[in-house]
Amino acid sequence: MAVPAKRDLVSIEDLSTAEILELFRHADTFRDDLRAWSHICCGTIMATLFFEPSTRTRLSFESAMHRLGGGVITAADEKNTSRSKGESLADTVRVVGGSYADILVVRHPEDGAARVAARYARVPVVNGGDGAHEHPTQTLCDLYTLWKEKGRLEGLEIVLCGDLRYSRTIHSFCYALARFGANIVTMPYPGFELPDYVLHRLRREFGVQAATASVGDLPGIAGSSNAAAYLTASKPHQLALFTSLTNFEVNRIDAIYMTRAQRERHAGEETRNYPRLTRSTLGAAAAKDARIMHPLPRVDEIDYDVDDDPRSVYFRQAELGVPMRMALMAFLLGKIQLDAAPPAVFTVTPGAAAGAGFRCRNERCITNNEGVRYLNRDFRIRDAEQPPVLSCAYCEREVEARFVGNPLSRKAFRTSSSGAVEIPRPDRVYFESEDQAQAAGYDCEP
Amino acid sequence: MAVPAKRDLVSIEDLSTAEILELFRHADTFRDDLRAWSHICCGTIMATLFFEPSTRTRLSFESAMHRLGGGVITAADEKNTSRSKGESLADTVRVVGGSYADILVVRHPEDGAARVAARYARVPVVNGGDGAHEHPTQTLCDLYTLWKEKGRLEGLEIVLCGDLRYSRTIHSFCYALARFGANIVTMPYPGFELPDYVLHRLRREFGVQAATASVGDLPGIAGSSNAAAYLTASKPHQLALFTSLTNFEVNRIDAIYMTRAQRERHAGEETRNYPRLTRSTLGAAAAKDARIMHPLPRVDEIDYDVDDDPRSVYFRQAELGVPMRMALMAFLLGKIQLDAAPPAVFTVTPGAAAGAGFRCRNERCITNNEGVRYLNRDFRIRDAEQPPVLSCAYCEREVEARFVGNPLSRKAFRTSSSGAVEIPRPDRVYFESEDQAQAAGYDCEP
Amino acid sequence: MAVPAKRDLVSIEDLSTAEILELFRHADTFRDDLRAWSHICCGTIMATLFFEPSTRTRLSFESAMHRLGGGVITAADEKNTSRSKGESLADTVRVVGGSYADILVVRHPEDGAARVAARYARVPVVNGGDGAHEHPTQTLCDLYTLWKEKGRLEGLEIVLCGDLRYSRTIHSFCYALARFGANIVTMPYPGFELPDYVLHRLRREFGVQAATASVGDLPGIAGSSNAAAYLTASKPHQLALFTSLTNFEVNRIDAIYMTRAQRERHAGEETRNYPRLTRSTLGAAAAKDARIMHPLPRVDEIDYDVDDDPRSVYFRQAELGVPMRMALMAFLLGKIQLDAAPPAVFTVTPGAAAGAGFRCRNERCITNNEGVRYLNRDFRIRDAEQPPVLSCAYCEREVEARFVGNPLSRKAFRTSSSGAVEIPRPDRVYFESEDQAQAAGYDCEP
Repeated sequence: MAVPAKRDLVSIEDLSTAEILELFRHADTFRDDLRAWSHICCGTIMATLFFEPSTRTRLSFESAMHRLGGGVITAADEKNTSRSKGESLADTVRVVGGSYADILVVRHPEDGAARVAARYARVPVVNGGDGAHEHPTQTLCDLYTLWKEKGRLEGLEIVLCGDLRYSRTIHSFCYALARFGANIVTMPYPGFELPDYVLHRLRREFGVQAATASVGDLPGIAGSSNAAAYLTASKPHQLALFTSLTNFEVNRIDAIYMTRAQRERHAGEETRNYPRLTRSTLGAAAAKDARIMHPLPRVDEIDYDVDDDPRSVYFRQAELGVPMRMALMAFLLGKIQLDAAPPAVFTVTPGAAAGAGFRCRNERCITNNEGVRYLNRDFRIRDAEQPPVLSCAYCEREVEARFVGNPLSRKAFRTSSSGAVEIPRPDRVYFESEDQAQAAGYDCEP
Repeated sequence: MAVPAKRDLVSIEDLSTAEILELFRHADTFRDDLRAWSHICCGTIMATLFFEPSTRTRLSFESAMHRLGGGVITAADEKNTSRSKGESLADTVRVVGGSYADILVVRHPEDGAARVAARYARVPVVNGGDGAHEHPTQTLCDLYTLWKEKGRLEGLEIVLCGDLRYSRTIHSFCYALARFGANIVTMPYPGFELPDYVLHRLRREFGVQAATASVGDLPGIAGSSNAAAYLTASKPHQLALFTSLTNFEVNRIDAIYMTRAQRERHAGEETRNYPRLTRSTLGAAAAKDARIMHPLPRVDEIDYDVDDDPRSVYFRQAELGVPMRMALMAFLLGKIQLDAAPPAVFTVTPGAAAGAGFRCRNERCITNNEGVRYLNRDFRIRDAEQPPVLSCAYCEREVEARFVGNPLSRKAFRTSSSGAVEIPRPDRVYFESEDQAQAAGYDCEP
Repeated sequence: MAVPAKRDLVSIEDLSTAEILELFRHADTFRDDLRAWSHICCGTIMATLFFEPSTRTRLSFESAMHRLGGGVITAADEKNTSRSKGESLADTVRVVGGSYADILVVRHPEDGAARVAARYARVPVVNGGDGAHEHPTQTLCDLYTLWKEKGRLEGLEIVLCGDLRYSRTIHSFCYALARFGANIVTMPYPGFELPDYVLHRLRREFGVQAATASVGDLPGIAGSSNAAAYLTASKPHQLALFTSLTNFEVNRIDAIYMTRAQRERHAGEETRNYPRLTRSTLGAAAAKDARIMHPLPRVDEIDYDVDDDPRSVYFRQAELGVPMRMALMAFLLGKIQLDAAPPAVFTVTPGAAAGAGFRCRNERCITNNEGVRYLNRDFRIRDAEQPPVLSCAYCEREVEARFVGNPLSRKAFRTSSSGAVEIPRPDRVYFESEDQAQAAGYDCEP
């Protein structure tokens, strides 16, 4: 019998929409009696490799694995690891993901690290958070909570509030909400808006359109409303509706998703007057049926006296993380099968073809940090677009390629020129700029 | 079937005397073959949340849980926890004590933290040591060791030696010894006497009477004998015996309980000439049938050449910790039932009723530290006494209430005055002093 | 039924050659299906006590124990342990190796620490690395890898390359290779040669003879070849072959064992130009059938593009660690029996008899560090040799005894003198020098 290819969860894109919904139903089954499944993964071992502080995520995974009857080995203290002796992530996962463990959960401070782990490990890898890139199991739990609370995801109106810049949770969540057809209202703390690369990706991959938003009245978090934006996925029928989408009034909120200031990733930004959700926020008419969500840990952006409000679901959200992760791991370990089809696989073009001088522009990307030693710079190319867009195969940051070269003639052309089109597609070498092409020894045609 | 209320073990007072003795018998059964019980807690998870360094206690709990067949998840490194991101203990236990774990063991540097955990968690909480407050499972193990060695607890003569000020183990142990009718001889290192609030509580709750003690001859630890005190619970028949209890000669010692200097809690106190138990201590006539106990870790307060003496039971004491904790956890998880009745429940009066300005006087209390953000200041009131005594619902530190106010008239009276008596009991608002009452806007009657 | 004495693995010498080979066959069985043995050690607990950073070794042991169905308790962070409160290793293992755990794995920075643990713990102790002394399970895994790759150990030609001074892995491996009759070519980075005490022990215990070596051509690691030495065990037939062993040409290499610079044990030595194994190294004729081994973690002493070469077995070497450790632990826990006989037991002479002033010369030895408080200085004596050799019972460092005293007459003699011979063997008191004997109050005969 052919062994099926291993599945990883590095990005929320690694699961198809239908698979996600099917996992929700499995999670419901596990949740019915959390203590009844300890025969499922007997003899199986999960390793948690946490190169960055965490309790919640690690404990949630470890709990899920114990509930499934498996063993857990943990390397959680960076200073106590082989990394302090200079070992690369690629080596660590090849060792631990050999006979040591049957599945790896990796948290790492560099963007794209989880994809590196997935490439090198022989066993399934789950991204427990990689830099400012993604945190897909948090997103699964967030979606699962919404789905249980509201019975659907499509068409929901979700307010994202606080530090939208540095929260990888928010970024993963945005892509997923767009995919499921929910609408997003961003209410960032000034200076902490969604990064451009997230907005670009939302536009490119999901056709998301943005409008200035005004939210009826949300006391406590209104301080940030100047920068509020309404993001809606432009599905066929919606395109029609919102052709002149310039200003959007939000009168019904399905969920307010608060985030703390991610101080450990800040460069000294000031966060006084950070938004704070209070009882009076919940008193607003628009928030009547809202659910208050938070990935936790909370600092003080939600008042303690909101905890008892039935609309506050952040502790429930954490609780649902265990059955959700049980379902995910049982699936990745082959203990449950899904009927749904997996997502289409993207082709990755090796970095060499992308241009000698091409490097990921994201300074936090693992290819510009510990991966310099051993990683090729690989990119996913969308050359149906003009200019073609290359996205880093690890951290998914996108760059536009303005020049393309022919390695035989050593000539480079603007990607919009006719000369560019004549280069056979597999031979094309991409450059960000004329300078870069010249530095790689190409003559640039005017 | 009604689900019984969850039981916690925050203070040794949370177990009745009969329950404790019944747990000893269960521990004996578990100890007969430690490896024979791995079916008891299958599918169940214990979380150890240790916000303070420890090995022994944590490993003992984890071993007990593994012996019972349960899973263990651990957050043991303060820097690697959500706490470093600013999360409160209340939030941590609500998350971890949700679907993550079925029982929590908490160690925390602030007095009263375990009671906070017990209030907020939905699952049973065991206090693994909270500041200088209590360490009840150590006390259970100590009592269990004594009970096995001596066949009883009542009437035993126990010498407590060393740092009696900062050792929470000693404090819990004192209350328990008084409750079981054992007598205590304190031999503190000068400057490290039992704190007054412990002596007061011993007097108030157990009617303990104190006398100056002289201990026949205990070389090595005699340096501290100047401050020796004899503490005996004044049960009816004892009251008669010791009406003129002024000086007590101890000629028979059942156990010498040594403690190390708790340097991590000291403020630079000098501890040269700290007592040191040697072979010659054991040669004393009074120590003929004594057992040498120590909660461990030992530094150098017991000589290594005492280890082989059959009266040295400190390693055995550690060993008994595992079956004792197995019994406790099996009980709290509902896997074994006890026939004995639980202790009476004390009523807690919300802090508001205790007076607007009333705060716990213990600067290490969690209500004066991380709890400031979210805890109400609650007190247990004993107003049968004069003046009424309020003890902090978290750290149990006691304060006398000298004034009591009527919130309707905004008048306050000395608690000994007739005006005080006229205020209906549920309305009474207590104050420590006239100043405090005035600061809260009350007029004080002369 | 008599309970057999517990077995420990502190030094690779604690297992007989036949036992090691039998363990390899058990490891093969476990490896056939790693997930099929979770019934073997049910109810049993392993404690990993790691007083020094490590991930690989700890995770490998923990994985092995989980694969066997046992529980694991871990103290891996030195700052979070009772040791930070001043507890000795002897106390820690007496507590944890009581009811807490059924087997201990100890890693410790001081040489000889594992033997101390084995003496004090009631349960089997496995040395997970003690200072620069030994790391016997790494050696077992290395031998097992070689044995599987080459089908035998005797007569293999093994090149050891890099930091041979501070790598305890290399030291254990040398003794084992000599025992199994493999030949060693040392290619140290200059200044990091095998220590003299290792060479002495190889000569004394295994009759190893040394010759200058030249290795045909090994680009990349040739920089160190000036100091290359050929070490061969002088078995009877080999003695004949190599009577004039002065210069040895190595033309066939069975394995190249690379090691990283053990910077954490260095005193600032410079390691630029550290040898680096590259594709061109593998292109050498002599390396045609070589296996590339490395205990990992690698820093950069093996190029990443060597990873895909089928001769690179370092990740396989790590993978084999789990089944090898499963076999070892199942054996030490009495879950599998071996037919082979154990090694002969060496007699240890208490330190007192070895001379009042005698102390281990190894400054990293535990007897000169934390053991000063409580350890006797014990030595193994070989007085068939002239001068007699005393090796520390903990760290195995050897010292020659030049003087021997008679405790009755308080007279000391050169060990080569007739006066020495007349002292009854059990009474002999040994000294390193005349000064030491005089300092102990002995008159030295001329």
